[in-house]
Amino acid sequence: MGSLALDTIETPFGRVDDAVGGASMYAGLAAALLAPVRLVGAVGDDFPQEALAALSERQVDLAGVEIVEDGKSFRWGGRYDFDMNTRDTLFTELGVFADFDPRIPEQWRTTEYVFLANIQPQLQMSVVRQVEPPRFVVADTMNFWIEGDREALVELLGHIDLLMVNDAEARQLSEETNLCAAAAEILQMGPRYVVIKKGEYGASLVSREGPFALPAVPLPDVVDPTGAGDSFAGGVIGMLAWLDDTGDDALRQALAVGTAVASICVQDFGVQALKGLTVAKLYERYESLRAMTTFAPCPLPS
Amino acid sequence: MGSLALDTIETPFGRVDDAVGGASMYAGLAAALLAPVRLVGAVGDDFPQEALAALSERQVDLAGVEIVEDGKSFRWGGRYDFDMNTRDTLFTELGVFADFDPRIPEQWRTTEYVFLANIQPQLQMSVVRQVEPPRFVVADTMNFWIEGDREALVELLGHIDLLMVNDAEARQLSEETNLCAAAAEILQMGPRYVVIKKGEYGASLVSREGPFALPAVPLPDVVDPTGAGDSFAGGVIGMLAWLDDTGDDALRQALAVGTAVASICVQDFGVQALKGLTVAKLYERYESLRAMTTFAPCPLPS
Repeated sequence: MGSLALDTIETPFGRVDDAVGGASMYAGLAAALLAPVRLVGAVGDDFPQEALAALSERQVDLAGVEIVEDGKSFRWGGRYDFDMNTRDTLFTELGVFADFDPRIPEQWRTTEYVFLANIQPQLQMSVVRQVEPPRFVVADTMNFWIEGDREALVELLGHIDLLMVNDAEARQLSEETNLCAAAAEILQMGPRYVVIKKGEYGASLVSREGPFALPAVPLPDVVDPTGAGDSFAGGVIGMLAWLDDTGDDALRQALAVGTAVASICVQDFGVQALKGLTVAKLYERYESLRAMTTFAPCPLPS
Repeated sequence: MGSLALDTIETPFGRVDDAVGGASMYAGLAAALLAPVRLVGAVGDDFPQEALAALSERQVDLAGVEIVEDGKSFRWGGRYDFDMNTRDTLFTELGVFADFDPRIPEQWRTTEYVFLANIQPQLQMSVVRQVEPPRFVVADTMNFWIEGDREALVELLGHIDLLMVNDAEARQLSEETNLCAAAAEILQMGPRYVVIKKGEYGASLVSREGPFALPAVPLPDVVDPTGAGDSFAGGVIGMLAWLDDTGDDALRQALAVGTAVASICVQDFGVQALKGLTVAKLYERYESLRAMTTFAPCPLPS
C-alpha cells in the first residue's frame, strides 16, 4: 500500500518529467518479481494506462487501486545534488492522495505479507486493521510523520512487525544519537525488527536475535537514487513471501534481495531498471553482494 | 612508522589530558597482538617512560624511536561533537616531529610488512627507500597532504601496495565524487589496493580482483573515536604479517581484524582498550563481525 505518482526528477545526469513512480510502484515492481502482489493506492485519470498495464502483466493485482475520475495523480518533483546523497523536494502535489482512504478488497483480508509504504500513520493503521492476523507487516515512515504525527506513529509501532527507516529517522524517532541505542529504543516501541537504511552505506537489521549488516553494492553508475528505499522494501517483502518464512535467516536473505534490487533500481531513471529486471539478474546481483561480503573464519586462537 | 603523541581529548563522555597516543602508538599496540613490531618515531624526554615500557612488554621493538633530549613530544588536542562523527582539532604542537627524519635501523632494512602512518609524504617515501624489497607497504594519509603536498603524495603512490584513506580523502585525491570511480582512479595512480574507511559505516577494499566491503561493528558505547583508523591499520598490517600472505583472502581477513580492533579501541579513552586487548577477545569480536555479516546463498533460480 502506498503512493502511485508522476515524478519529475533532476540529477546531474539528466531529467525526466512526469515519469511513473511512487512508493508502491517501485515496491510493487520489485516484489512482483518474487511473489504475487496486491497493490493498494490511488491515481487520477491522468495516470498513464501503459503503466498500470505493465504492473498487471507482472502478477500485480490492481483491484486495490482506485482510479479517481477527474482526479489528479500525486506529483512529486525532486533535484539531486552532484553527489547524489542529498536531494531537494521541488514540489509535492497530493492530488488524489489528499483524500486517500485505503480500502482492502474483501478477498485480500487474509494477505500474509503486508508492506505499508510511507504515508500518514493513520492510513497505515487502517490497513493493518483491515488485514487479519496472522500477517507480517513491514512499515516505512519519514521525518514528516515522526515530527508531525508522532502519537499515531507510535500507536502503529505496536501493531507492526518490522519498521524500516533511514539512520536520521531512527535517531529522530528514538531521540538517541547512537544507532544501536536508537534501534534498541525502537524495538521497545513495538516492532520485533528494525531495518536501518543508510543509503550508499548499506542497511542493517536489528532484533532481539542480534544485528545483521550489509554494505550497499558499490556502483560506478548511480543515475537516479529515486525509489531506492521503496524497491529495497519491495525486495524485502517479496522475498519473505517467496520464502514464506520470517525467521532470522530469511530476513537476512530478504535484506540481501532488497539491497540487490535497490542497487539495480538506481542504475537508471525512475522505474526503467526495475521494469527490465529478471530473477536471473537479481540472482546474479545477490551472489555478487555475497561474494563481496564473505571472509574466512578467524584463524587466530580463541 | 608514525607519531607518538600526548593527546588531550574531549568527548561528550569525558576528557583526558596528555594521554599517550599518536598513530604509531595505536597501530603498534594493535599490530603487536599479532606479530613482532618495529616502531619508528620520535618523542621528547617528557614522554612517559611507562608508555614506552608498555610497548616493550608487548613485542614492540623501540630501536627506531628517537628520544630527543630537551625535546617536547608531539601534542594534539581534539574535541568530538555529540554524535562522535565530527571532531575539531583544538591544537597541534609538532614538538620533536617538526624535525623528524625517520631512520630505519640497519638490521630492520629487510622488514616485510611496513605501515606508514599519516605524516608528510616525503618522510613516508624516505622510509620506503630505506626498506628493501620484497615488502608490502601500507600507507595512510590525510586531506592536509592531498591538498598541500600532492606531488610528493602522488610520487609515494607509485611505491606503495595499499593506500588507506577515508571516503572524503578518496574523493579529494581522485577528484571523483563516486566512490567506485574514486577507488578506480587511485588504483591507476599506483597502489594495487585501496582501503576506504567510512567510520561508523565500515570499510571497503578495492583492487583489480573486485570489491570487498565490511560494515563497522554496531556499538552502543562509543567512548572515544581517537585512534580508530590507526588501530584499524595496525590490525590490518599485523594480520598480514601473522598470515604472511597478501592474497585477496588474507586481505579480507586483515580488514576484518582491523575492523574488530578498531571497534574495541573506541570503547574506551585513548589506548586503554588496546592495552587490555587479548587475542582471545579479538577472535571473539572477529567472529561476531562474521556472524553479523553472513547470509545464505540465493535460493532464487539463476
